[in-house]
Amino acid sequence: MSGLKIAVVGATGAVGREMWRLVASGVLPVSRVLPYTSARSAGTELMFHGTSVRAIALSENTFEPVDLALFSAGASVAREWAPRFVAAGSVVVDNSSAFRKDPDVPLVVPEINGQALEAGVRLVANPNCSTIQMVMALAPLHRSWRLRSVKVATYQSASGAGARALTELLEGTRQYLEGGVEEPRAFPHPIAFNVIPQVGDFDAAGESVEERKMRDETRRILGLPDLPLSATCVRVPVLRAHSEAVWASFEDVPDPRRAHALLTEAGIVVEDDPARSRYPLPRHAAGRPEVFVGRLRSDPSDPRGLAFWVVSDNLLKGAATNAVQVAEALLARGLLARSVS
Amino acid sequence: MSGLKIAVVGATGAVGREMWRLVASGVLPVSRVLPYTSARSAGTELMFHGTSVRAIALSENTFEPVDLALFSAGASVAREWAPRFVAAGSVVVDNSSAFRKDPDVPLVVPEINGQALEAGVRLVANPNCSTIQMVMALAPLHRSWRLRSVKVATYQSASGAGARALTELLEGTRQYLEGGVEEPRAFPHPIAFNVIPQVGDFDAAGESVEERKMRDETRRILGLPDLPLSATCVRVPVLRAHSEAVWASFEDVPDPRRAHALLTEAGIVVEDDPARSRYPLPRHAAGRPEVFVGRLRSDPSDPRGLAFWVVSDNLLKGAATNAVQVAEALLARGLLARSVS
Repeated sequence: MSGLKIAVVGATGAVGREMWRLVASGVLPVSRVLPYTSARSAGTELMFHGTSVRAIALSENTFEPVDLALFSAGASVAREWAPRFVAAGSVVVDNSSAFRKDPDVPLVVPEINGQALEAGVRLVANPNCSTIQMVMALAPLHRSWRLRSVKVATYQSASGAGARALTELLEGTRQYLEGGVEEPRAFPHPIAFNVIPQVGDFDAAGESVEERKMRDETRRILGLPDLPLSATCVRVPVLRAHSEAVWASFEDVPDPRRAHALLTEAGIVVEDDPARSRYPLPRHAAGRPEVFVGRLRSDPSDPRGLAFWVVSDNLLKGAATNAVQVAEALLARGLLARSVS
Repeated sequence: MSGLKIAVVGATGAVGREMWRLVASGVLPVSRVLPYTSARSAGTELMFHGTSVRAIALSENTFEPVDLALFSAGASVAREWAPRFVAAGSVVVDNSSAFRKDPDVPLVVPEINGQALEAGVRLVANPNCSTIQMVMALAPLHRSWRLRSVKVATYQSASGAGARALTELLEGTRQYLEGGVEEPRAFPHPIAFNVIPQVGDFDAAGESVEERKMRDETRRILGLPDLPLSATCVRVPVLRAHSEAVWASFEDVPDPRRAHALLTEAGIVVEDDPARSRYPLPRHAAGRPEVFVGRLRSDPSDPRGLAFWVVSDNLLKGAATNAVQVAEALLARGLLARSVS
C-alpha cells in the first residue's frame, strides 16, 4: 500500500508535537507530512526521518488537501479549517472541543466505541484528555457491573494547558525558589507549589468547562446519556500526565479482584501493590502511551462502589495517541485511504 | 491572673514551631515556656519575647511538671510522655494519633464539639489535619441537613509529613530543575512535579492510614459513628496548606446559597466567585489560621449533595491553632489553671 499524505495542524503545540512524533515514528504509512501551525510559529523546524521540515502557517495559500489531517490547534482553528479539509476530501481527527457535542461527529476512544467509526465518516472528534483516561478504566467495569454514577477529582498537569503553560510552571518554580515574582499568564494564579481548582471557565452553576466535558463526553462515549457524574477538576504543579481519584458506583456489586483482571484484559496497566508503594504516578506515566490504574479497592462508603486512581500521559493517550489510534482504526476498516496527492 | 507554665513537646518540628510561635504571640497567659525536643534537635535556639531559648532534650532528668503541655512529637513520644505529664498534674493536648481512638480521651475541634471538654479532663487529642479542615466545613451543613455520606479527595502539602519533608520538596525541586537525581526519604517517591496517592501505610483492604483516620475521626467529632465516608489521600508538591475536593450527601435537600451563609456564620472564610477565579488556594491559605471554602455547588450527580473545595494551613488550624484553641477553651471553662510552679 502506498503511504498517506498527512497534515498535522498545530504541529508545534504540546499535543501537536506528540502527533508529529507519532507520525514520524511510522505508526501510520506516510508518503508525505505537512506541519501546519499558526503564523507566529511558522518556520519552526521539526524532524522527520532525519531531515528538518519547516512548519507552515496555515492559510488559503498554503492549504493542501491531504488524506488525513490530525488537528490539535484549538477549537476556533478547527471550526474554521476542519470543514475545509473535509470538503477537499480529507479525513480529519480533531483534538479540540469544537465538534465533540455534534451528534453527527463521532467522539471516539477506539478501545471503547470504535464501532462509531462508520462508512462515510470524514470528521472524528478526539475526547478531552481527562475523559479518555477515565473512560478507559470505567468501560471494562461498566460492561461487567453496569455503571450507576461516578465522582472524580482530577490532578491535572500543566501541559494540559499547552506548551506555554508547561514553561510557566518551570519558570514560575525557578522564580519562586529564587524569591522572584511570578507573573501567571497561562493560569489564573501562580501554579508553582500551588493547586488551582479551575480548568477552563465556569458556568452559572459553578461548574467548570472541564468538569462539564468530563460528564458530557463520558456519557457519549459509554452510551449512557443520563449517567450521573460529578467532577472537580484541579490543576497541579506536575509537568505531564493527569491523575484522577475516581469513585464508581454500579448496579451490580463489583469485586476489586475481578476489576483488576477486567482492567488488565482491557489493556490497562494495573500497578497496584500499595504496601510496597506501588501505584501509578504521573512522573512514571509521562511519555508512556498506556493508561495506569492502582489503589483499586471497594468503596468503604458504598457497597456497590469501587474507588481507584487513574494516571495517563495527557499528551499521549489523552490526545495524540488516541487521535492516531482513531486513524489506525479508520485505516483498518478501509475508511482512510490514499485518495489525493 | 498569673501565667501558665507551658511545655511545647516537639518544639522544633513543623507543627511544634507553630505551637511555639502561638504561645510566644501571647494567645495564652504564659509565665514560663519549656521547649522540649528530641536529643538530636536539643540546643536549637527558639525566640521567646525577644530572647533566645535553647530547646531541651526531653528525658527523666529534664522533665518538669507544667500546667499545659502541647505535644507535637509523634505517637511514640506521646505514648511514653503524655501519661507522665498527666500524672504530674499537667493538662496535655496531643497532636499525634496516639490517643485519638481512645474513648476516654476527647478528640476535639472546639468550634464543633468543645462540649467534650468536661471537668476532670487531663488529656485531649487534636484531630488529624485533613480531618479538622473538612469537619469545620461539614459540621454547619450537617446541623442543617443531616449528613448522610461523604467522599473526599485530598491534595496534601509536604509540610504535613514534617519539616524534613518540606526540605525534601524544595531540595528535590531544585535538583530536578538542575537535572540532578533526587533521593526521596520523607516520601516513598520523588515529590517534585509529582503527586503521590499515599499518605501513611496501607491496610489489607488497600486503604491508607490517613484515609482511615479521616473516616474514624470525622465520625467521632461529628458524633456519627456509622457515617459512610471514603477518602483518597494524595500528597502534592505544595509547601503548606492542604486542599480537599469534598462531596457531601444529606438526608434533606441542601441549598448552595444557604450553605454559603451557614459556613460564613460558622466562621469559615467563603471565597467563592469562580467567574473571577476566586476560590481558596493553598498558597493564599498558608500562614493563615482560618478554614477557606469555595467552589460550593450542587452535586450534579446527587440531588441531595453538595460539592465544595476546602483549604486550610495544615500546620495552623490543622494542628497548632486547633491545639491552642483547645487550651483556650479549657482555660475559659476553668479546666486549666496555674497549679504547679
